[in-house]
Amino acid sequence: MEKVRIGLIGTGYIGRCHAIAYAQASTVFSLKGEIVREMVAEVNPEVAKQQAALLGFKRSTGDWRELVADPDIDVVDICAPNFLHKEMALEAIRHGKHVYSEKPLALDVADAEEMTRAAEAAGVKTLVGFNYMKNPTSQLAKEIIARGEIGEVVHFYGTHNEDYLASPNTPLDWHCQRALAGLGALGDLGAHIVNMAHFLVGNISEVSGDMLTVIKQRPDPKDPSRLREVENEDQASALLRFTNGAHGVIETSRIACGSKMGLTYVVTGTKGTLRYTQERMAELELYIHDDPAGRQGFKTILTGPAHPDYASFCISAGHGIGFNDQKTVEIRDLINGIAANDRMWPDFAEGLQVSKVLEAIAVSALERRWMPV
Amino acid sequence: MEKVRIGLIGTGYIGRCHAIAYAQASTVFSLKGEIVREMVAEVNPEVAKQQAALLGFKRSTGDWRELVADPDIDVVDICAPNFLHKEMALEAIRHGKHVYSEKPLALDVADAEEMTRAAEAAGVKTLVGFNYMKNPTSQLAKEIIARGEIGEVVHFYGTHNEDYLASPNTPLDWHCQRALAGLGALGDLGAHIVNMAHFLVGNISEVSGDMLTVIKQRPDPKDPSRLREVENEDQASALLRFTNGAHGVIETSRIACGSKMGLTYVVTGTKGTLRYTQERMAELELYIHDDPAGRQGFKTILTGPAHPDYASFCISAGHGIGFNDQKTVEIRDLINGIAANDRMWPDFAEGLQVSKVLEAIAVSALERRWMPV
Amino acid sequence: MEKVRIGLIGTGYIGRCHAIAYAQASTVFSLKGEIVREMVAEVNPEVAKQQAALLGFKRSTGDWRELVADPDIDVVDICAPNFLHKEMALEAIRHGKHVYSEKPLALDVADAEEMTRAAEAAGVKTLVGFNYMKNPTSQLAKEIIARGEIGEVVHFYGTHNEDYLASPNTPLDWHCQRALAGLGALGDLGAHIVNMAHFLVGNISEVSGDMLTVIKQRPDPKDPSRLREVENEDQASALLRFTNGAHGVIETSRIACGSKMGLTYVVTGTKGTLRYTQERMAELELYIHDDPAGRQGFKTILTGPAHPDYASFCISAGHGIGFNDQKTVEIRDLINGIAANDRMWPDFAEGLQVSKVLEAIAVSALERRWMPV
Amino acid sequence: MEKVRIGLIGTGYIGRCHAIAYAQASTVFSLKGEIVREMVAEVNPEVAKQQAALLGFKRSTGDWRELVADPDIDVVDICAPNFLHKEMALEAIRHGKHVYSEKPLALDVADAEEMTRAAEAAGVKTLVGFNYMKNPTSQLAKEIIARGEIGEVVHFYGTHNEDYLASPNTPLDWHCQRALAGLGALGDLGAHIVNMAHFLVGNISEVSGDMLTVIKQRPDPKDPSRLREVENEDQASALLRFTNGAHGVIETSRIACGSKMGLTYVVTGTKGTLRYTQERMAELELYIHDDPAGRQGFKTILTGPAHPDYASFCISAGHGIGFNDQKTVEIRDLINGIAANDRMWPDFAEGLQVSKVLEAIAVSALERRWMPV
Repeated sequence: MEKVRIGLIGTGYIGRCHAIAYAQASTVFSLKGEIVREMVAEVNPEVAKQQAALLGFKRSTGDWRELVADPDIDVVDICAPNFLHKEMALEAIRHGKHVYSEKPLALDVADAEEMTRAAEAAGVKTLVGFNYMKNPTSQLAKEIIARGEIGEVVHFYGTHNEDYLASPNTPLDWHCQRALAGLGALGDLGAHIVNMAHFLVGNISEVSGDMLTVIKQRPDPKDPSRLREVENEDQASALLRFTNGAHGVIETSRIACGSKMGLTYVVTGTKGTLRYTQERMAELELYIHDDPAGRQGFKTILTGPAHPDYASFCISAGHGIGFNDQKTVEIRDLINGIAANDRMWPDFAEGLQVSKVLEAIAVSALERRWMPV
Repeated sequence: MEKVRIGLIGTGYIGRCHAIAYAQASTVFSLKGEIVREMVAEVNPEVAKQQAALLGFKRSTGDWRELVADPDIDVVDICAPNFLHKEMALEAIRHGKHVYSEKPLALDVADAEEMTRAAEAAGVKTLVGFNYMKNPTSQLAKEIIARGEIGEVVHFYGTHNEDYLASPNTPLDWHCQRALAGLGALGDLGAHIVNMAHFLVGNISEVSGDMLTVIKQRPDPKDPSRLREVENEDQASALLRFTNGAHGVIETSRIACGSKMGLTYVVTGTKGTLRYTQERMAELELYIHDDPAGRQGFKTILTGPAHPDYASFCISAGHGIGFNDQKTVEIRDLINGIAANDRMWPDFAEGLQVSKVLEAIAVSALERRWMPV
Repeated sequence: MEKVRIGLIGTGYIGRCHAIAYAQASTVFSLKGEIVREMVAEVNPEVAKQQAALLGFKRSTGDWRELVADPDIDVVDICAPNFLHKEMALEAIRHGKHVYSEKPLALDVADAEEMTRAAEAAGVKTLVGFNYMKNPTSQLAKEIIARGEIGEVVHFYGTHNEDYLASPNTPLDWHCQRALAGLGALGDLGAHIVNMAHFLVGNISEVSGDMLTVIKQRPDPKDPSRLREVENEDQASALLRFTNGAHGVIETSRIACGSKMGLTYVVTGTKGTLRYTQERMAELELYIHDDPAGRQGFKTILTGPAHPDYASFCISAGHGIGFNDQKTVEIRDLINGIAANDRMWPDFAEGLQVSKVLEAIAVSALERRWMPV
Repeated sequence: MEKVRIGLIGTGYIGRCHAIAYAQASTVFSLKGEIVREMVAEVNPEVAKQQAALLGFKRSTGDWRELVADPDIDVVDICAPNFLHKEMALEAIRHGKHVYSEKPLALDVADAEEMTRAAEAAGVKTLVGFNYMKNPTSQLAKEIIARGEIGEVVHFYGTHNEDYLASPNTPLDWHCQRALAGLGALGDLGAHIVNMAHFLVGNISEVSGDMLTVIKQRPDPKDPSRLREVENEDQASALLRFTNGAHGVIETSRIACGSKMGLTYVVTGTKGTLRYTQERMAELELYIHDDPAGRQGFKTILTGPAHPDYASFCISAGHGIGFNDQKTVEIRDLINGIAANDRMWPDFAEGLQVSKVLEAIAVSALERRWMPV
């Protein structure tokens, strides 16, 4: 079986998630390639070494450029800060590596476009880490829509709300700086719900957006007595028009008190409706309009082995998969995509499409007018 | 105790709801005036007579003009079709009657303005039947916001979705005709959620709206083989800016499969969040950001005697009040407003304000630009 | 139309609930008899007079014996304290009155038996106020079971938990005294869930019970520094065997922190399951085992006009009826039962059957063995 | 770091779950020992070989006796059918191995006792796979109870219901045969809820049980036209008395239509209540009686990094861990228990205690009387 040798850049929050998924993926799935946890890069070579040991990787480096140039790496997995995605991806592509990047693909559309074109020109494969769409429950939602069980989609409402910056005392960090993060809630969280809208309904053609920076200044992390400017939005909302004629709304916030993993959607069709919240990631609510009178209602389906990918984790329904397991499905797609040329999606082209929607929302909000995507 | 003599015009769906509320109001509340169910008007005098007997009214008439002119009527209660509200209200005001009108106040802003000005000029009291804000649970929401328990409101998301026209086979009726209904989902349902937004957050200054008529033709009720044009929107969405700086979104639909009483809201503040759905009208979810670490979460408060107006119905928490009971609270406000000059709200001025928002959304949707209210 | 003249004894918590229901019943339903709110009895004649005025009754008395003897009374409605039910009912029956009594019918089986026999001998009609089974949602549950939609019932789990005595500082009142209340949680709350079990599943033949008085002493209401003995159980549980072969469990508590209206049931059949909680009294959850693979789940049915009695309150689904509305359905049954000889259930015989089950549980708990009912 | 070399017997449903957990455990946790996936045993040596490759184990064997005797095995992990647990464990203990066994520990108390005594005599460490108590959410429940946040526990209601045998057409398998399974629902599922009761409340001293075999015959898997006897219970219920004075009820069923992972509990204390269902394994509902009037309610806590063990999987609250992750926590306990002598619980002594409760319930049900444990 073909080996797929992974070079992981960054071992913070999401890098660890990738590492856990690499660790379990070949036990969960019958993969078409062999995962080799080859090398870890971290800025500090000592940290890199420790993390490699902890996360089960063979080698480590303090220089990501060494990793992307290494001949024994097949896939460069970018879990570094967002502002570095572009440079790393381009350099990896230049060395002919496949690239697996965390979202958002880049800080703006121009960068995402450059990365996408470079990957296409080089003929390398790409994947972007929009992991929530890999949850069997959302795959089930997709299946129900694709089969026409709720008719034609006429409306989509989606959110990705969290509250990690709800407290005004939380110091300013990279999330709040345009040079490091690009957009605020839209880039960090909104990217997921736009991808989910694409996945479930299709592409978005026009938007009318609005944004608000509620907490305009935050303490400097180095000197809390000093306040620094927050440079991007805490929350955003947008009216959407899809290319297939459906209308919709998405919202995102990083200060939505009480939302811990508030990726939610309601997809309304001509024959039924789906409702979902990621905080109950094992449940999909389905309403079918043609159910008999007096027996209509939203049915709470617990994800189980009858649904996509679930049975690989557990053969009993309702037992539940977790956050890291979604990433494991994504890594299955990565390995099978590279080893057996299976479809890998969401690729850079989708990452670019998401960026276009986000940027259109932001421009629309600033210019106060509808924008085409 | 002063008598408050009621003349009820219209005994359909909502007229019966009023009648049930009149029947129980003086048993539920210690009113400041005595309700006299004086007269019912229906187009058909025979029906009027039967309904008067059934609903406990003394007299009946087949001519609403007779009712509004009757010297023994203090309040004209308009439960007639929407397109008649204006004429009836103006005529009632001309006879110096107080006017209690169902929502929407009128088919457009111009009419609502005329009615409001006429009532002000005549010095009569007015009330509009936005009953959902009378639910103790939503009054509790208001109380929590007013006391600052969730801090400053930064975001409002509200819907009023139902599915009464979800089936394309449902024949065209007055709801779908501009001359009879004015707006579609916005006028019939959206009026409630705009009023709720006003009640909970404050006035709206600007909107960017979008609308869609999904089912463009429906069977003619007289000849189902013939299709007739649907003249107004099935669903609408709008970005909102409130005068106090909060942002928001409202949505409404009459084809939202599965939504039976989908008036919902999420009010996000700087210190907490409220969530509500009218389908669970006895529950309010409250999140307080400053709860201790590890003990944070949305608390489901069951409405009870500690909350506004509930104890008049039942002294035990969680036992629940129903749809008609909301109207009973409204009628308490009506009677006490007229007999003792207590505050009556939402009055025509609020009905007008709601109309302005709805019309701004509709115009915004057609012209595809932000509109001031 | 025949008049049904009501004499109401007691205007406390539940007496007011009856009064509200009398007030609205003829507006809600097309009754087969005319309700006449004839007379109110209260110990204090002044209170009686005030309450009669407030609750819309014509006359009042400070002596319930006068009421039960009054020739212009057809139905004696007993909302007096439990320990008086027997004497009042027997006296009313002696005067040939129909009797409508609140639950529990009596303090023990012997009394309930005597009352039931007396009513049968006198040929008067009886009704006991187990109002929760009148909720359209529980009537729907009954309908689903009766039609075989969940197959044969194999298990019933039911609770009626509240928390009105959860605080050890709440002073001792009549609930805690055997001479006034008989049993504790079992008599006050358990009666409802036993009746519900009868209604939904059928009669109970054997029980194994357990009881606990958690808070053994409470402050004397007159002298809080003095503690007095609690004489009956705070909570109880019982294994059940039904005559039809199903097994079950019921539980009840008056100290179940957080349960405000914790009447709940889960009815498991060979082909499906029903779940219900009175705190969400408009929702019934239905699972059908034969639903297609991958589309199984509990469906949340919102009560609506397709279900028993709902449409009389409102013609739109999901709009909700309240606690007092259940009593209104009960009063519809009372009036139609007396005026038109419609079936009146739960009658005294059912009240007696409930008492037998409760007493069997209590004896079983004390003797620590299974007891036949 | 000390190596902990695992010998896994059985790679069916639960064996795979163990394997997935072994794969990810060292990436998730900073373990105190190094996991070595040494050997797999399966009846068929070819299958053993394939499974070893798939699950990341070094060696394989078709003879479990070879595995338990292997000098390079430190822990024997028994995921074989229940009827083999005893023989395998005794043999492993005889070879001085630590034993990690799936539940139920044995088919009856005598066997469990023998195994427990043998392990104690040999001084080997033991662990039983009651994985649900390892869920951070249930660990949080334990923490809340231990800190006295809900006061003294006065009542426990617990279930473990599933529906894997709900269909009468499902052929008879080992679950239904006493020689292979021992008890029915009690042994397979009830074991979990008894362990959870022990974990959360404490030991059980007396029980009164009842059992029912609903589907008395099932098709022979080899000849579906022939029906064979079901030898153990489909469902069971029991009243409980805990040694600390609390009362309780547990129920279990394998035919409870709609219950997919119906491990649920309600723990009522003198100052508050906890509610939990494993189907929403990331949520704990907490009610605190002393919350301010009008602000009381069940709070839904989403498990997060403030709770035990969660942060090792993900540092953001509400993102969720899955079924296999619970086993990963268990394996952390195993490895740290063996490598660093950390406490390992539930051990064989607890497995034995669970067996005693289950057997007391079964005997109580047959003899129809209360039984001491």
